[in-house]
Amino acid sequence: MTAMQSSDKRSSSPLEGLSEILKPDLDAVNAIILDKLTSDVPLIHQIASYLIASGGKRIRPLLTLAVTTALDGDLSRAQNLAAVVEFIHSATLLHDDVVDESAERRGQASANDVFGNQVSVLVGDFLFSRSFQLMVADGSLETLRILSDASAVIAEGEVLQLQMQRNLDTSWDQYIRMIGAKTAALFAAACEVGAVVSDSAPDLQKAMYEYGYNLGVAFQIADDLLDYNADQAALGKQIGDDFKEGKISAPVLMAYQAGTEDEKAFWLRTIGKDQQEEGDLEKAQNMIKEHDIIREGLDKARFYAGQAEKTLENLPVSPVKPLLEQLLHYVIERSA
Amino acid sequence: MTAMQSSDKRSSSPLEGLSEILKPDLDAVNAIILDKLTSDVPLIHQIASYLIASGGKRIRPLLTLAVTTALDGDLSRAQNLAAVVEFIHSATLLHDDVVDESAERRGQASANDVFGNQVSVLVGDFLFSRSFQLMVADGSLETLRILSDASAVIAEGEVLQLQMQRNLDTSWDQYIRMIGAKTAALFAAACEVGAVVSDSAPDLQKAMYEYGYNLGVAFQIADDLLDYNADQAALGKQIGDDFKEGKISAPVLMAYQAGTEDEKAFWLRTIGKDQQEEGDLEKAQNMIKEHDIIREGLDKARFYAGQAEKTLENLPVSPVKPLLEQLLHYVIERSA
Repeated sequence: MTAMQSSDKRSSSPLEGLSEILKPDLDAVNAIILDKLTSDVPLIHQIASYLIASGGKRIRPLLTLAVTTALDGDLSRAQNLAAVVEFIHSATLLHDDVVDESAERRGQASANDVFGNQVSVLVGDFLFSRSFQLMVADGSLETLRILSDASAVIAEGEVLQLQMQRNLDTSWDQYIRMIGAKTAALFAAACEVGAVVSDSAPDLQKAMYEYGYNLGVAFQIADDLLDYNADQAALGKQIGDDFKEGKISAPVLMAYQAGTEDEKAFWLRTIGKDQQEEGDLEKAQNMIKEHDIIREGLDKARFYAGQAEKTLENLPVSPVKPLLEQLLHYVIERSA
Repeated sequence: MTAMQSSDKRSSSPLEGLSEILKPDLDAVNAIILDKLTSDVPLIHQIASYLIASGGKRIRPLLTLAVTTALDGDLSRAQNLAAVVEFIHSATLLHDDVVDESAERRGQASANDVFGNQVSVLVGDFLFSRSFQLMVADGSLETLRILSDASAVIAEGEVLQLQMQRNLDTSWDQYIRMIGAKTAALFAAACEVGAVVSDSAPDLQKAMYEYGYNLGVAFQIADDLLDYNADQAALGKQIGDDFKEGKISAPVLMAYQAGTEDEKAFWLRTIGKDQQEEGDLEKAQNMIKEHDIIREGLDKARFYAGQAEKTLENLPVSPVKPLLEQLLHYVIERSA
C-alpha cells in the first residue's frame, strides 16, 4: 500500500508535486487573487473572476513560490508577487483574445463579439493596473523594476509576433527572440522575484532569471509542437488551432525550411496567404510527421531545458529542487 | 506696440500661457517622451511616435508641471512624472480606439482594420508598461501608488461607460461617477503628484487632487456638450461624432430627461437602439437647443469649476496660479 502510494506520487506531474508541497502558499495566493479582483464595478469582478479564479495550472505563481521556498525567502512577499505574476499573465491572455478573435472573425463580427472585445481590453487593463497596485503594496522598487520591465518586454514580444504574422521567411533566431519576449520574460521574472524576496546574492538572482527564461522558451517550443502532433490528437487533445489561425510557430518554420518546392507552396498558401481547404490540416500534420519535425523540435526544446538545468546547480538541496528539475522535462515530454 | 502685445497675451488661452511659462520644462517632458518611446521593435517606435510625439495640447503634463512650479517643487521629478501621465493618457486613447472602432464597424471589418485593432491593444500595453518603468525610475512608492491607483480607476471608468452604453436610464450620478473615473482620475493624479514632488503638506496634496478632479469633471461635461452645439458647428468645428456612436453623454441624458414623449422616443430609437436616419443629427441638435441644454449643462460644469477654484485658495501666489484659475473657465467656455 505504501509502495503503491509512493509509486502514485512518482507518476504525478511535477506541477502537482509543487502544488502539494506549496499548498498553504498556493492557497494564500488564490485568496489574494480573489480578494484583489474585487471592484465596485460588478462586470469587472464577474469577468475577472471567471477568467482568473477558475484555476488553471498556476505554473508562473508556483515558480515564484518554489524559488522562494528553495532559497528560504520571505513567503508572505512571494505570495503577493505570485498573485501579481498571475494578474499580468491573465491580462495578457485577455488582450491576446482580442487579437485572435479579431483575426479569426474577419468580416463577420456580431454585436456580441464586439462587446466581448471591448470588455477584454478593459478588464485586461484593470488586471494590469491592479497588478501594479499589488506591487506597490510589496513596497520594493526592485521587484517593481523586474516586473514592469517584463511587462514592457511582453508587449514588445506580442508586437513582434504580429509583425511576423504569416511571414514564412521569419528566421529561427527571430522566432526565439519573439517567444523569449512573449512567453519566457514572465517565467524569468516570476523566478527572479522569488530570489529577490530571498535576499539572494546577485549571481543567484541572475541564475533564477536564467532558469525561468530557458524554461519558458522550452515550454513555448513544446507548446507549439503539441498543436501539430497527430499522436496527441489520438489521445483526445484538441489540436490544430495554430494552423487554422495561420500562426508562425516552431513546427511551421521548421517544416517550411525542410520542405520540397511543393511543400513550401503548401505552407505559403495555407499559412502565408490564409487560403485553407478541407483536409489541409491533415496534410500539414503528415508533412510534419514525414520530416520528423516533432522529434527535431523537441531536441531544440531540450537544449533550452538543459541550459535551465545548469542554473539549478547553485540551488541548495530542498524538496522543491528535484521538482524544478522534473518540470523542465515535463513541459517538453507532454508534447512528445 | 507693447500694449498690443500685452492684449495679445491676454487673449491667448491659459494652456498657451502655461506652455509659455513652463516652456523649458515642457521641452524636457517632450524629450523624455521621445527618448522613452524607443523600442527595439520598429513598429512600436513608429506607431507610438506617431501618436504621442505629434503633440496635442499636453494638458495633463502641463498640470503636473504647473502645480510643481506653483509649489516650488522638484521640477526634474515633475518632468519625468508628467511624461508618465502622458503615456498613461496615450495608452488609454489607443485602447479606446479599439473599442470605438469595433463598435463602429459592426460586420464590415477589413483586414486592415483588424491589424489596426491588434496594434492598438499591444502598443497601448507597451506605453502602459513603459509608464510604470518610468515611475520606477522616479523611485518613489508614493507617486507609484497614486498613478497605479489612477490607472485602475480609469479602467473601471471605461467599463462603467461600456455598461451604460445605449442605456438612457443612466442617472446623472452614475454619469458623474463614470466621467470621474474615466477622465477626472488622471487629471487629479497629474496634479497630486505635482504636490508630492514638492513635499507639500497632506492637506495641500489633497487640495491639488481635488483641483484636478473637479477640473476633469468640468472638462468632460463641457467636452460632451461641445459635440451637440450647433453654434460651434457654425464655427467650423467637427461635431456630432458622439451622436453617431450612440454615446451616453451629458447633453443626451439631460435632453432625454427633459424631453416630451415623442422626444424620448426619438432618443430611445437613435441612441438606445442605434437606428439613425438622415437628418437625425440635426433633429437632436434642435431638441438640445430648444430645451436650452447647452446653457444648463455649462452651469453644471461651472459648479465643478467653482469647486476646483476653492482649492486654489491654498496655493501661494505665483505666475502660474492665475493661469490655473483661467484654465477652469477656459475648458468650459470653449464649448459655449
